[in-house]
Amino acid sequence: MSDRTESPDRELDLVLERVVDVPPALVWEAWTRPEHLKEWFVPHPWKLADCELDLRPGGIFRTVMESPEGERFPGTGCYLEVVPGERLVWTVALLPGYRPASDPDLNFTAIIEIRPEGEGTRYTATALHQSPEGRARHEEMGFHEGWGTALDQLVEYARTSLA
Amino acid sequence: MSDRTESPDRELDLVLERVVDVPPALVWEAWTRPEHLKEWFVPHPWKLADCELDLRPGGIFRTVMESPEGERFPGTGCYLEVVPGERLVWTVALLPGYRPASDPDLNFTAIIEIRPEGEGTRYTATALHQSPEGRARHEEMGFHEGWGTALDQLVEYARTSLA
Repeated sequence: MSDRTESPDRELDLVLERVVDVPPALVWEAWTRPEHLKEWFVPHPWKLADCELDLRPGGIFRTVMESPEGERFPGTGCYLEVVPGERLVWTVALLPGYRPASDPDLNFTAIIEIRPEGEGTRYTATALHQSPEGRARHEEMGFHEGWGTALDQLVEYARTSLA
Repeated sequence: MSDRTESPDRELDLVLERVVDVPPALVWEAWTRPEHLKEWFVPHPWKLADCELDLRPGGIFRTVMESPEGERFPGTGCYLEVVPGERLVWTVALLPGYRPASDPDLNFTAIIEIRPEGEGTRYTATALHQSPEGRARHEEMGFHEGWGTALDQLVEYARTSLA
């Protein structure tokens, strides 16, 4: 299941690809354990106040982001593919158990690909959207800065606390 | 992966459950080969003019229904789970490769469960909706008659052509 990603669609997808100097196993750990996810998933000074990860197709991926002022933003999605150490796919278009979501505020599917490269990892995060407008909206909300900063935090956390 | 279905939600789901006298293997065949699907999937005198089945998570499930007057109604969805002989899940909330669909006209996820019972099969088709309104709309469109008639056609076809 790990080699099926189509080429990104330039009108519909957003891609963050980078080689980072932590091994694939630690990137996977950081993505799949709640206690690790809380340390890096949301760009500081925001934080991940709560999360729930049921790592199987159809399982829940729930997050609660919290602003510096304490306002909370819950979100619920559904895992679609879980290939340990290699590939994690989830969407907010479906709720747990694959139930269609009722008009998510921002609709996307995320594909996280983790491949060994040298001593580190080639990390590719792709967000798939339903329309050019959806893609543009996600980009304006700060996809590249947000996901890039989160990846910086993941790398820092993995190097200092997981290695 | 085959025992995870939650209990149906009475406000959001539609369920067709019936014991039929063809074995699970033939029900599976009927659902998963284009040449078989065309024979039973659409209540006559409508027909399935074309279809495409890529039986893997993220793979396309595309159908083109045709009215007696020759009007065609294409639809594209995405498989989510493929457990041979037991369980088939697909949704129209996502396009192939898990891309969120852009406002499907009728949004649902379908779970087909096939279990041996005596010489036959306990067949359960569950349609999951995002809202009570979505469920009501699907019911008014004839979920029970349509899916029930299609199942009758499946059984007849399997008994006469696949057994």
